[in-house]
Amino acid sequence: MRIVLDAMGGDKAPENPVKGAVMAVKEYGYEVTLVGREKEIRKELEGEKYPEDKLSVVNVPEVIDMEEPAAVSVRKKRNSSIVKGLEMVKDKTHDAFVSAGNTGAVVCAATLSLRLLPGIDRPGIAVVFPTLAKPILVIDVGANIDPKPLHMLQYGVMGDAYSRHLFGKEDPSVGLLNIGEESSKGTDFEKESHALLKNSKLNFIGNVEPKEVYKGSADVVLSNGFVGNVFLKVTEAFAYAGAELLKTELKRSGLLAQLGALMMLPSLKKIKKRVDSSEHGGAPLLGVDGRVIIAHGSSNPKAVKNAIRVAGEFYDHQVNKHILEELQTF
Amino acid sequence: MRIVLDAMGGDKAPENPVKGAVMAVKEYGYEVTLVGREKEIRKELEGEKYPEDKLSVVNVPEVIDMEEPAAVSVRKKRNSSIVKGLEMVKDKTHDAFVSAGNTGAVVCAATLSLRLLPGIDRPGIAVVFPTLAKPILVIDVGANIDPKPLHMLQYGVMGDAYSRHLFGKEDPSVGLLNIGEESSKGTDFEKESHALLKNSKLNFIGNVEPKEVYKGSADVVLSNGFVGNVFLKVTEAFAYAGAELLKTELKRSGLLAQLGALMMLPSLKKIKKRVDSSEHGGAPLLGVDGRVIIAHGSSNPKAVKNAIRVAGEFYDHQVNKHILEELQTF
Repeated sequence: MRIVLDAMGGDKAPENPVKGAVMAVKEYGYEVTLVGREKEIRKELEGEKYPEDKLSVVNVPEVIDMEEPAAVSVRKKRNSSIVKGLEMVKDKTHDAFVSAGNTGAVVCAATLSLRLLPGIDRPGIAVVFPTLAKPILVIDVGANIDPKPLHMLQYGVMGDAYSRHLFGKEDPSVGLLNIGEESSKGTDFEKESHALLKNSKLNFIGNVEPKEVYKGSADVVLSNGFVGNVFLKVTEAFAYAGAELLKTELKRSGLLAQLGALMMLPSLKKIKKRVDSSEHGGAPLLGVDGRVIIAHGSSNPKAVKNAIRVAGEFYDHQVNKHILEELQTF
Repeated sequence: MRIVLDAMGGDKAPENPVKGAVMAVKEYGYEVTLVGREKEIRKELEGEKYPEDKLSVVNVPEVIDMEEPAAVSVRKKRNSSIVKGLEMVKDKTHDAFVSAGNTGAVVCAATLSLRLLPGIDRPGIAVVFPTLAKPILVIDVGANIDPKPLHMLQYGVMGDAYSRHLFGKEDPSVGLLNIGEESSKGTDFEKESHALLKNSKLNFIGNVEPKEVYKGSADVVLSNGFVGNVFLKVTEAFAYAGAELLKTELKRSGLLAQLGALMMLPSLKKIKKRVDSSEHGGAPLLGVDGRVIIAHGSSNPKAVKNAIRVAGEFYDHQVNKHILEELQTF
């Protein structure tokens, strides 16, 4: 397994990608190629111990920043870690590309460079979301913010394949994120998507509201990319605000409450581990003809390592082959 | 102040509305008219003590259920608590209408019966949202799920007036809920709304992501009604899931953690009180030519009481007069 890692992607790059790569080569034994500014990468590698034949560096001078407009930057920065890294998957010298960088740029460059699977009109970012019952798949969370109902059906097929082969679900249940359960709820987009999904071969269980998503009522949740992105970001924001509120309140409280918090700490840490996105790693960009894993911009080294693990699973389970097979039957 | 309360609205009606009405007449001294099935209402009133001249009942036989399609039910059920209750505001015998019932039906019936303020094309539900810094206003959270950019500008003006006169903000900051800060982010809808707001007289601070909303970075947050509804529902779902996770984890944990939780209980309760939606009461339906307050379907008696309080504030602060004044200057 040969994986290209965008060493310049993420809020703390190249430090976190490099450290994550070192962890991954040691833990999984994959070959990882770090793409980016070699001097900066080598500096981060100083003092790290790892099997040197497993980790290589390819020098490219340009970096697409986190907030640059996607299409423009991909066209202009041909020598960036994102564009060059994806070319190394296109030319088959590597098996997968992993980046915690500018999501829009990765989606755009991957679509241009690798092209889409036949039968797929738009790629979708599929995120593994922890719920009360089990981890589920939410697709799309931001690649396609103004989708057509047909894209939802295609996401349904891809999510179904992913859930079958990576989560071992026999007949994954598929739900449509909406503001009400009835088929009449939502805009025309949701109503038309609902009708398409209902008449498909998928195990479509209908609309799911956010609470049902959190309960784990569906194995695969389909969403407009804009709404899916808001869904994820509200979840992150709530986690942040909840922790802040607790800290502030505990500071104001007496010693008893503070001691209580200390005694609860192991339980709180277990919960954090269970819901922590860095444990679940990166999100596959489904629909491109290749393997692309997108990690959160705030990924720490462990999250980068786990994103590399997801790339390996994507390869081992031949996800794209299974997606193509399922598309045949539709 | 004479307020009509939909006694049949909400998941636990008429029990919770009736109890909330009793609390409100005692606490605020308003006159409250309960509209609904008189026999059921009288049964709930049995044993309650309250100033009898303040609380009256108007019997109507029909009920619009929580999940009925809005437009159809409003047309068909002319003798429902929602339709009749709103008529009692239209005919000026009452000053405001409060309901925890079918939101779509309330929006539809209010628009048909009371009509919109001149200069407003669509009503919007404005919810008071607790943040780390202060309570803010989020508008719209579900009245208008497929809005035009112009509606966002109108919501901005109404939110500005509400924030000035009810929260005492001098020059309320207005943000647009989006998936990124840059003006290029989002769909055409967000981009066009951004341009309109930027060129308005509002104190527009640009796009705000969910985390900024939670931090309280804007006094008024404008949103597509579908996205705003998802925003609220994810927040509720997370609160629910977080509590469930904590309960499950504590059951598994040892006595120490359980004791710790007990010691933290007062702090946790304070946080709950601070973010509890029942403390903030109902959400005004801004833009209709009258006073309509929508409460959550799950409202307990205290939440109903607080929704009645919000109706009183809406009246006292002459919100609609101020909205009309602001619209003149645009």
